[in-house]
Amino acid sequence: MEIVLISIGNELLNGTVVNTNATWIAQKLYEVGFTVKRVLTISDSKEDIHRELENNEGVVLITGGLGPTNDDITKACLMEHTSSSLILHEPTWQHVRSIFERRGVDPGERNKQQAMVPSDAIVFPNEMGTAPGLYIKGKKNHIIALPGVPFEMKHLMQKEVIPLLLKEFKPLELKMETVHIIGVSESHLQEQVAHWEAQLPDNIQVAFLPEPGVVKLRLSGFVNGVNDVDQIIKDALDELHLILGDSIFGYNGEQMEEIVGEELKRQGKTLSVAESCTGGYLSHLLTSIPGSSEYFKGGFIAYSNEFKIDKLEVEPYIIEKYGAVSIETVEAMAKASLEKTNTDYSIAISGIAGPDGGTQEKPVGTVCIAVFDGNEMKSYQYQFSSNRIVNIRRAAIMSLNLLRLMVQ
Amino acid sequence: MEIVLISIGNELLNGTVVNTNATWIAQKLYEVGFTVKRVLTISDSKEDIHRELENNEGVVLITGGLGPTNDDITKACLMEHTSSSLILHEPTWQHVRSIFERRGVDPGERNKQQAMVPSDAIVFPNEMGTAPGLYIKGKKNHIIALPGVPFEMKHLMQKEVIPLLLKEFKPLELKMETVHIIGVSESHLQEQVAHWEAQLPDNIQVAFLPEPGVVKLRLSGFVNGVNDVDQIIKDALDELHLILGDSIFGYNGEQMEEIVGEELKRQGKTLSVAESCTGGYLSHLLTSIPGSSEYFKGGFIAYSNEFKIDKLEVEPYIIEKYGAVSIETVEAMAKASLEKTNTDYSIAISGIAGPDGGTQEKPVGTVCIAVFDGNEMKSYQYQFSSNRIVNIRRAAIMSLNLLRLMVQ
Repeated sequence: MEIVLISIGNELLNGTVVNTNATWIAQKLYEVGFTVKRVLTISDSKEDIHRELENNEGVVLITGGLGPTNDDITKACLMEHTSSSLILHEPTWQHVRSIFERRGVDPGERNKQQAMVPSDAIVFPNEMGTAPGLYIKGKKNHIIALPGVPFEMKHLMQKEVIPLLLKEFKPLELKMETVHIIGVSESHLQEQVAHWEAQLPDNIQVAFLPEPGVVKLRLSGFVNGVNDVDQIIKDALDELHLILGDSIFGYNGEQMEEIVGEELKRQGKTLSVAESCTGGYLSHLLTSIPGSSEYFKGGFIAYSNEFKIDKLEVEPYIIEKYGAVSIETVEAMAKASLEKTNTDYSIAISGIAGPDGGTQEKPVGTVCIAVFDGNEMKSYQYQFSSNRIVNIRRAAIMSLNLLRLMVQ
Repeated sequence: MEIVLISIGNELLNGTVVNTNATWIAQKLYEVGFTVKRVLTISDSKEDIHRELENNEGVVLITGGLGPTNDDITKACLMEHTSSSLILHEPTWQHVRSIFERRGVDPGERNKQQAMVPSDAIVFPNEMGTAPGLYIKGKKNHIIALPGVPFEMKHLMQKEVIPLLLKEFKPLELKMETVHIIGVSESHLQEQVAHWEAQLPDNIQVAFLPEPGVVKLRLSGFVNGVNDVDQIIKDALDELHLILGDSIFGYNGEQMEEIVGEELKRQGKTLSVAESCTGGYLSHLLTSIPGSSEYFKGGFIAYSNEFKIDKLEVEPYIIEKYGAVSIETVEAMAKASLEKTNTDYSIAISGIAGPDGGTQEKPVGTVCIAVFDGNEMKSYQYQFSSNRIVNIRRAAIMSLNLLRLMVQ
């Protein structure tokens, strides 16, 4: 069974909006065992829409063009395509009216259009908005039309479309595991695992998904009745663990800041930070996790030398002798952070994020990190990249990894 | 002249990778006056690639499938499509060899394949990698093939493809201005400008591009010889300014943190912050701008009440009486931040980011912000959304806007 995704909208064709809908849909379908054959983006043009309704077999999943404005012509095309007429869908009209009544506004004739549907369509109620989803068995294909607003589309995909597809078509059974790796570059990782990868059977796919400072390695395979995909992936993960050891920090979407936070919470320990070059990004990562106030007590953004000296009591001679970016400075910062906030652990970071500020001795991308538990101080100097944003991200993730190795 | 973008790669069809190449290319083409008719993503399949080479007229711009592995079959398809043969392109082979020699590695037969090109192709040298770009005048279309690696593709687009298209085809001349608006929701903005929008001539397009806390309104039009697009857009912007006033904070990609930073730098003033619910995100925004150390001196992530009391000397009775999320608390935080760091301005934020911690009186999304210049204290209470990440982002951007209004 072939699935074609069609996104409709001029804004997707002039670079105004990245088509994340198609990516999201493809991933969700893949996870339940359906593969997408083609993804298409076309303009708000009847001719183009008709061409695709005619030319594609299997399941044609359309997003966009269902709204109440003049650009929104998907419904008219569906009606023409199946030679049906538009009829009022009473439950949708009630739903639309109730939305406008709550706002104290008259829905008007234009919004009544939202409740008009092709007479041969099955209607998917849209609790998140006014435009319902539509399902039509066409001449030679199954047509599903959803609104383009991401949270409405996602709601309808999960509540209606995926259950429908699972009922009407037989999905392949997919097994998938993702391994999160830190401290190894993508190319180095590929070399390290080349032998391991070569020994995997043909039906197991390996994908390398690099992010700044982290590489995600995804193993997947459709159950085929020939070999035991589940067991193969399990064994492959065990072997991978022998090769990569501590470099593996998580699995299947777990984020570093979550893993470290969970461990601190489990142990009932607390954390504070002193950030220079990361400028608040480490704190932001930690506090992006709900409930982080249980273990994260606060931090100091010591962006200037004065702040380091006045607020974190770094001795001026340390900065003078070793520099603001030095093992000595981050150790002093980590010590002050822990003591001033009475936390169990602290992290301190100082570096040259760039693009300016580099020297021959300490080029852009030089970053020093210290982690401290009140007794043991661990500190490291790294050389990251020339890109400011990448350096900030890598320094923060790497510092969390050092804390992970200390607390685990 | 029609342009069709075709991205090749299984990883784009199973949701592993978001197709940002197509969006980037569409935007660059739009900016120089070319519009894209369709965007297609297909698998690494000869059949599918051939189908698209046959069925599309105009310019067919392909990315991906040019690498040295077995999945990479674009070149073979091009050769078959034009019934040409593969020949060794000597300058590319020299380039590939020099890359491998620098690494001290033998390129081997596989990488020699990178220098084999269809005999009827014009070769675009790829300084950033081993796979060159290719340009072939096909039977009924112009085929351009580029590597899928984003920075290689971008390099070839800017250096070779756009100049070629500008030489071979007549682009439309585009005029475009983007206005950045804060403090107005998208739907409210649409109502406010509905009358203004209705009076624009048909060849002027208005796009609303919402982000958390900010809406970008883009005005664009192709020069048509009928009316003066430049002047129309200029006049429309003037009128928009009368309608929206201070809500407009920038134009054409300027970011809030840049605008505020530039103004502080111009005035030689300094800033510190005290963040609670934004947990470092405000500091991160400020320090993501190169050179921000000139005006941003540092900050306090006062995530716990103890930190607010011990480090920022917020009186315990204030927190007890008014709450940690209150005008009184953020005013005390702003005062302490400014005094402790000797800066000209300070910002303080405290709120309930969610998902937990809300009460009937102060539900999730309640955020208090104070900005202080040593004399004048301005403070506000907001009600944002139920989403933690959105609340963090909106609070930080809104606080910068308050500072902007104070410093300007």
